[in-house]
Amino acid sequence: MDYQQLITFIMEMLGTVAFAASGAMVAVDRAMDIFGVIVLGVTTAVGGGAIRDVILGIVPPAMFRNPIYTLVATITSCVVFMILYLKKELLQGHNRETYDKIMLVMDSIGLGIFTVVGVNTGISHGYVDYMFLLVFLGTITGVGGGLLRDIMAGVPPYILVRHIYACASIVGAIVCVLLYRHFGAVASMVGASAVVVLIRYLAAHYRWNLPKLTREEEN
Amino acid sequence: MDYQQLITFIMEMLGTVAFAASGAMVAVDRAMDIFGVIVLGVTTAVGGGAIRDVILGIVPPAMFRNPIYTLVATITSCVVFMILYLKKELLQGHNRETYDKIMLVMDSIGLGIFTVVGVNTGISHGYVDYMFLLVFLGTITGVGGGLLRDIMAGVPPYILVRHIYACASIVGAIVCVLLYRHFGAVASMVGASAVVVLIRYLAAHYRWNLPKLTREEEN
Amino acid sequence: MDYQQLITFIMEMLGTVAFAASGAMVAVDRAMDIFGVIVLGVTTAVGGGAIRDVILGIVPPAMFRNPIYTLVATITSCVVFMILYLKKELLQGHNRETYDKIMLVMDSIGLGIFTVVGVNTGISHGYVDYMFLLVFLGTITGVGGGLLRDIMAGVPPYILVRHIYACASIVGAIVCVLLYRHFGAVASMVGASAVVVLIRYLAAHYRWNLPKLTREEEN
Repeated sequence: MDYQQLITFIMEMLGTVAFAASGAMVAVDRAMDIFGVIVLGVTTAVGGGAIRDVILGIVPPAMFRNPIYTLVATITSCVVFMILYLKKELLQGHNRETYDKIMLVMDSIGLGIFTVVGVNTGISHGYVDYMFLLVFLGTITGVGGGLLRDIMAGVPPYILVRHIYACASIVGAIVCVLLYRHFGAVASMVGASAVVVLIRYLAAHYRWNLPKLTREEEN
Repeated sequence: MDYQQLITFIMEMLGTVAFAASGAMVAVDRAMDIFGVIVLGVTTAVGGGAIRDVILGIVPPAMFRNPIYTLVATITSCVVFMILYLKKELLQGHNRETYDKIMLVMDSIGLGIFTVVGVNTGISHGYVDYMFLLVFLGTITGVGGGLLRDIMAGVPPYILVRHIYACASIVGAIVCVLLYRHFGAVASMVGASAVVVLIRYLAAHYRWNLPKLTREEEN
Repeated sequence: MDYQQLITFIMEMLGTVAFAASGAMVAVDRAMDIFGVIVLGVTTAVGGGAIRDVILGIVPPAMFRNPIYTLVATITSCVVFMILYLKKELLQGHNRETYDKIMLVMDSIGLGIFTVVGVNTGISHGYVDYMFLLVFLGTITGVGGGLLRDIMAGVPPYILVRHIYACASIVGAIVCVLLYRHFGAVASMVGASAVVVLIRYLAAHYRWNLPKLTREEEN
């Protein structure tokens, strides 16, 4: 395992932990039992990558052959469950705000990291010149897990209703491809995931909103 | 690009525009912002074909390598959004009826065209004698995009609740295979998609309903 | 077709009937028409296996090439619809309890059988030494159909909210692999599916519940 593989592995682990935590938090919030929490945590963590691998024809997908991702996601989900079980007050009142903030951070980190991991998987399979395919792979890897999480939990998908969600992923994927072509893999991964997290953070903090038609506006 | 390829390409473009418009309309109706509208429009337009390609082992699927479909779907979604943004009254009162009618037409055209495109993709990959597989491919390509749209938007899937939806697609796929065997590709594509649109239109117009058990009937 | 293939085939047919019936029952309960009932029955019956085949790179998936599974699922769905159409009182009052019990039995049998079928598909494709992959394949084949059913019907997925659902499937898959290694294919299939059904039955009967955080507990 050389330097670049090590960076990739560390980032994948970080993304797995972040997305598993976001999935587990949604599950706890929906009053699921410990098993539902684990299933949703694991699905959120490995779902996007599984979709990407199937699209690229990498079968069986990496996460089905290598248990490490599922194991890490399972442990993360259990830890989240235990913390919230022991500290129920974290879900209520003004702690709720802190909860929402942690959820946002976890989801942003997962989105950023998996976007660049998706792009890099495409590059390492020889599609370095297919800008459009790479951006699609990055976006699907980034948003796929969260989308499955929201569909399974029966909540309106983040990607469709929240601030500039897929937008951050798409911009990050483009930045990732450009950085890769000029500065190599490591710079592209670290730089582009930072860009995604930054865009999402700024969007949430300054309440950037894209135009939309609301019922209220109509009346 | 010969004559047949041209016809196929024109039909795919028409289907993409029609399905993207239907996805964008559902998204606007659910008060999503411009980005959610684009995501739902694109998903509706390319989703069914992506599922079909994965099932046939065509990886990466055509729409991930060729940006034209996504580009056309994105532009269509933006146009729909802008029209409804400038003319909010289209969503209300008795205009609502016109809106529903346009939605039905778009969805029917998309269903018809993608059904025959699905069958033809199967035929061109050498499965011309597998009637059952071809019909399944046609139906999945036809209903897949709309199904993803409805699941993501959190509305009850059209395919499960509306007039003879999947039924039209299945009949169209069978007609398509039969026409192909006797009259060639172009006749089968044009003829079979017309059959699908016709069945759906007649079903909606005459309120054809299949038997079902309702709560009302029970009491 | 030798002895082992015959057993596999019989079990697949049983699982198909059980899952199709569960899908059709959910569809009837959601007031869908006959076509929605068939679509949901077929999706529940063949969905898990289709996901598994795509993950293993078996394209087109078995159920798309061989009409027998879809045919059996269609017939089962029609029979369920007709019974409930003629005997509407089965959905009401204290008959409702019997209905729920039959639903539980059907869903358990489907879960048990498809779990072992999934494991065996993995083994017969040469992954006998990949314990983790086999368990994942078994679980996805087992829960995939029911998950698609619940998502399409817009009800909270069983796998996330009910008693020890995925848990039974995972334990069954592990038992299946171990039995296969020591006693061969037939023993592993029959034994392991019995284990899954037993765990689910006991869990439902004794109301085993895994720990969870409920709104009620919080107050």
